[in-house]
Amino acid sequence: MAASEYSLRRALVEKQSSIESQGNAVRALKASNAVKADVDEAIEKLNALKLEKSSIEKQLQAAVSGNPDGSVNKEAFRQAVVNTLERRLFFIPSFKIYRGVAGLYDYGPPGCAVKSNVLAFWRQHFVLEENMLEVDCPCVTPEVVLKASGHVDKFTDLMVKDEKTGTCYRADHLLKDFCNEKIQKDLSISAEKAAELKHVLAVLDDLSAEELGAKIKEYGITAPDTKNPLSDPYPFNLMFQTSIGPSGLSPGYMRPETAQGIFVNFKDLYYYNGNKLPFAAAQIGQAFRNEISPRQGLLRVREFTLAEIEHFVDPEDKSHPKYSEVADLEFLMFPREQQVSGQSAKKIRLGEAVSKGIVNNETLGYFIGRVYLFLTHLGIDKDRLRFRQHLANEMAHYAADCWDAEIESSYGWIECVGIADRSAYDLRAHTDKSGVPLVAHEKFSEPKEVEKLVIAPVKKELGLSFKGNQKKVVEALEAMNEKEALDMKSSLETKGEVEFYVCTLGENVTIKKSMVSISKEKKKEHQRTFTPSVIEPSFGIGRIIYCLYEHSFYMRSSKAGDEQQNVFRFPPLVAPIKCTVFPLVQNQQYEDVAKIISKSLTAAGISHKIDITGTSIGKRYARTDELGVPFAITVDSTSSVTIRERDSKDQIRVNVEEAASVVKSVTDGHTTWADAWANFPHHSSGSVED
Amino acid sequence: MAASEYSLRRALVEKQSSIESQGNAVRALKASNAVKADVDEAIEKLNALKLEKSSIEKQLQAAVSGNPDGSVNKEAFRQAVVNTLERRLFFIPSFKIYRGVAGLYDYGPPGCAVKSNVLAFWRQHFVLEENMLEVDCPCVTPEVVLKASGHVDKFTDLMVKDEKTGTCYRADHLLKDFCNEKIQKDLSISAEKAAELKHVLAVLDDLSAEELGAKIKEYGITAPDTKNPLSDPYPFNLMFQTSIGPSGLSPGYMRPETAQGIFVNFKDLYYYNGNKLPFAAAQIGQAFRNEISPRQGLLRVREFTLAEIEHFVDPEDKSHPKYSEVADLEFLMFPREQQVSGQSAKKIRLGEAVSKGIVNNETLGYFIGRVYLFLTHLGIDKDRLRFRQHLANEMAHYAADCWDAEIESSYGWIECVGIADRSAYDLRAHTDKSGVPLVAHEKFSEPKEVEKLVIAPVKKELGLSFKGNQKKVVEALEAMNEKEALDMKSSLETKGEVEFYVCTLGENVTIKKSMVSISKEKKKEHQRTFTPSVIEPSFGIGRIIYCLYEHSFYMRSSKAGDEQQNVFRFPPLVAPIKCTVFPLVQNQQYEDVAKIISKSLTAAGISHKIDITGTSIGKRYARTDELGVPFAITVDSTSSVTIRERDSKDQIRVNVEEAASVVKSVTDGHTTWADAWANFPHHSSGSVED
Repeated sequence: MAASEYSLRRALVEKQSSIESQGNAVRALKASNAVKADVDEAIEKLNALKLEKSSIEKQLQAAVSGNPDGSVNKEAFRQAVVNTLERRLFFIPSFKIYRGVAGLYDYGPPGCAVKSNVLAFWRQHFVLEENMLEVDCPCVTPEVVLKASGHVDKFTDLMVKDEKTGTCYRADHLLKDFCNEKIQKDLSISAEKAAELKHVLAVLDDLSAEELGAKIKEYGITAPDTKNPLSDPYPFNLMFQTSIGPSGLSPGYMRPETAQGIFVNFKDLYYYNGNKLPFAAAQIGQAFRNEISPRQGLLRVREFTLAEIEHFVDPEDKSHPKYSEVADLEFLMFPREQQVSGQSAKKIRLGEAVSKGIVNNETLGYFIGRVYLFLTHLGIDKDRLRFRQHLANEMAHYAADCWDAEIESSYGWIECVGIADRSAYDLRAHTDKSGVPLVAHEKFSEPKEVEKLVIAPVKKELGLSFKGNQKKVVEALEAMNEKEALDMKSSLETKGEVEFYVCTLGENVTIKKSMVSISKEKKKEHQRTFTPSVIEPSFGIGRIIYCLYEHSFYMRSSKAGDEQQNVFRFPPLVAPIKCTVFPLVQNQQYEDVAKIISKSLTAAGISHKIDITGTSIGKRYARTDELGVPFAITVDSTSSVTIRERDSKDQIRVNVEEAASVVKSVTDGHTTWADAWANFPHHSSGSVED
Repeated sequence: MAASEYSLRRALVEKQSSIESQGNAVRALKASNAVKADVDEAIEKLNALKLEKSSIEKQLQAAVSGNPDGSVNKEAFRQAVVNTLERRLFFIPSFKIYRGVAGLYDYGPPGCAVKSNVLAFWRQHFVLEENMLEVDCPCVTPEVVLKASGHVDKFTDLMVKDEKTGTCYRADHLLKDFCNEKIQKDLSISAEKAAELKHVLAVLDDLSAEELGAKIKEYGITAPDTKNPLSDPYPFNLMFQTSIGPSGLSPGYMRPETAQGIFVNFKDLYYYNGNKLPFAAAQIGQAFRNEISPRQGLLRVREFTLAEIEHFVDPEDKSHPKYSEVADLEFLMFPREQQVSGQSAKKIRLGEAVSKGIVNNETLGYFIGRVYLFLTHLGIDKDRLRFRQHLANEMAHYAADCWDAEIESSYGWIECVGIADRSAYDLRAHTDKSGVPLVAHEKFSEPKEVEKLVIAPVKKELGLSFKGNQKKVVEALEAMNEKEALDMKSSLETKGEVEFYVCTLGENVTIKKSMVSISKEKKKEHQRTFTPSVIEPSFGIGRIIYCLYEHSFYMRSSKAGDEQQNVFRFPPLVAPIKCTVFPLVQNQQYEDVAKIISKSLTAAGISHKIDITGTSIGKRYARTDELGVPFAITVDSTSSVTIRERDSKDQIRVNVEEAASVVKSVTDGHTTWADAWANFPHHSSGSVED
């Protein structure tokens, strides 16, 4: 991001905050029945601030989009990106000839190539460099697995229905839209009311179905399209349900994430890794969420590609051997405390965040650093990327810490990667449900002497007293923790008997000394058995790609100045095609040279296209700029050719034999365009570009 | 395949045929009440033939598995392969800790790497070399699309239920098993009965639910596990059904193939290709079939990866510009006629098959050739690969021609790739259902004059006579073909009126001369509009990989001769890891050298593993042979190292600096191991291997 863009963004945040204070001031004046002149003056000031904000927004859009007249706003910018993406088949609404299905999109040829490139780099950057164990599991998943993981019971959104038409809405979305609308547009509301609405927004995610329903009633919220009354909110499970096999008796779901496939294989993977920790497994694959009403275009879809890593680690040692390689990275972080105290994200050195305990542990920190490198390598603007820590109420009770990589887009800050320390939750859940212990062992170099509590119920005695309830009493005795057991032991020794509450019976029973023996014994142990913690970086590939499109897109005037041209400034790593080959005019000699160059590009493994249409060279350049092709080789003689770089439009002249190797070297990142510019004669395009 | 193996296979086929004739002879003798001695002699001869067959089978298995004592049979060979695959996590039964789900499998780390390599080569061999347009569409598909394609109505298998337990079976499987069992094992059946059962097997795929049910009743077939009676057969749709969105009103399915995603995008893809034919689109992705009772392990599964190509071509010109590149290939083909006349597959030059019209057209022939090259490059044994043409009753009515690439495995010949000329069927079906014309145009270089039939119903007159039925009469008139229309024209001219059958009314109406004008008009046309034909090569990636495992697997004795070792002879292209690096003994100096070599391998893009465990070098070799790793670099000094080739176990000695480049050159196919063997000093392993 250019410096000017960054300062514009900061100015925008400040201006928004001034507008909010001034809005409060206006409301306070009105509420206090101040004289009209004072109120008018305050309103005038508010309006002036709004004008200034709008002017900054325009400058910012101009800076981002490269449009000098600054006339575009966020929505117009997005529209320009999306139009280009759709026109050039980066994506296509799925089943378009049948009027499509909300939340389902196809990747057309260039989009498919970008996705391939992003996934290949992901595999290189994570799986290969870290020696991860990659697996590939089915999407169809039996109910028992997702029951264990909690998805069957808890993977829901609260839904309301239009009582007349049956149209469904997410209850929290309606309440959120209502509150935002009121706060931003309705100057008549009191300061207290504004504060209340802000409070509702803050606690939105914590509201129960009943609380949401009560608020919707209280505010008189109706169906947005029809103004009909709404039903009470009720949970809707977001998994696509199906049935496995012909009997109809085996319910199944399309997986909502790829992670469970790894967890259920933990035992085999641990063995494959030589029974050693830490190790990571990874999976790339489709996941499915039956959204109630998808909005935000490509960002909230019903089927998407996830790339997930489950890094298994000893909970007592979360250090990482390669941590020092990322500790000096510095980037925007947004810790919990900054969010709660209303500050904004700021640049922090990763090593500092870990050493101060802001980030829970080294391994979590290591992955945050690796994710930062991954995203910025792809071309995500580092100044529009932040790592936001989950607030206490966002995080599952078992999680040790959780950070989202958020990327700023025209829709706001979008969660694209989640990096969570989920502790031992998932492996324990599957251990409990399946009965197969998903645990690891640490062998001691020499046996350790440990003191262990031994609770030995005397079943015969217990049976005589409790008959059919014997089993429940035995289980309750065995489930005592150390303190409870030692208390019972001393009571039995002093009094001979003790009252004991058995929760499965719901009553007290009398335990006599003869019924249980409690002791502490010394034992030699050769190993420690434990459930590993898991640290899970989870990547929404489609969201990353969409944000990449927005960060890469700009518009510039044609040389003649008569039209706007669209450009994607993809790095070669991501570009769907690395190079085009254009014979300047239609002529057999030039086409032969083009074919020779094409052969050497193929041999060098550079994906490319030849365009031998008679279209003007300027149009052909513009056409490939729009696909983000970084280099174009134009054949204008049989001995030498020109190579044009997409963003600078600069051209160098090289011999035919060298052309492929120059492009390969820059594309592979061994040299830069600046090197090529320094080493080869420059070519002036004259009026050729248009 | 070695020459001996090939001749063994031929001998086996001949022996089987002798056994069948002799079986018939025995039956005939019995039926004719021949003297006991003659019958006994015939039976003795039959048994001798069976013994000879079994001996050939053993020799063959020995040749295939490399096991010199020839003691393994097909099932034992398969078990050895599958055990190795499962133990080394090439695959894992999915959700194993929950006792799995039939027909669902995970790829573990080496299997996942093999799959990645196969798909990368597929992309290279087809998409990049042929400039195909790759797309990526969702698995969740709305009903309307699969209604148009015919899957909702016809993608079914006939199922019967155990009437007491409710267990489901495929009706045709039960009948097939019954017939095979009777023919092979029951010598008491008459020649007529045997002929009848063979006929049932031949027409099995054509039987209706009623006919299947009648046969099951006639033969008294019961449930295999319980011997309970069976229900009548009824169709079970093999698609996984689900519901899209929260309303429950939009049925959807998990796609049974990826092809439909391409067809519905035809219009956009044609435009993307500059409105030019021919072009091909391609898609790799998951497909789903809810099999009634999956058997055959990894070959018949409920979720699998398909790679499909839809090549769109002008039906009037199915030539292919690159056809000559494959015309001289010669391989096993099994045309319809050979199958019907009981011959076996034979080697045919592809060019001959096309020119003789055995293969319908050049483009179909081109893809058959490309598929042959693809499969043999991966390591499929060319003598256990055949292209079998569909019989008339196997092929859909619209298909012009269809060939399956079948690979021989321990399960028999397995269909792994289907290559079909589906004519215009799919595009027409979606045109009809969606109302969006999926057509192509051929612009004429100069306008052509054509004579066109014009049928112009006079609606006013028709309305007066037919009132509410007017529309149906108009439609029927307009639907007449040229002959019908010209007949009507002449009748009207001579008689003034004519009887006309309107099928939508189910009756004749009287058409008078004033009601319709029929004429032939000359028109200038600038282009021809037509529905393209589609040629579809469709690859079952999982099946190809499984057959590749069987073709690559062999066992050999350890040097000490005390154990059998498993080897996969994967070509480097497919191998999950290309190279291992072993310090001979645990020692810092050697480990440092290993790390240096590892770095140069990474720089050269060669996937590899370092193994620094203290295990014996022989064990480490054996461990990686079982993963099919082609090369091992052993560090036994700080200046030079050895490189060992997996199958020959030969070792050469190279300098540390050269090690990576030697491996890269052989792995990339620029040189061969024979070159390396000729250029570097040989190293004798002594007793190191064990």
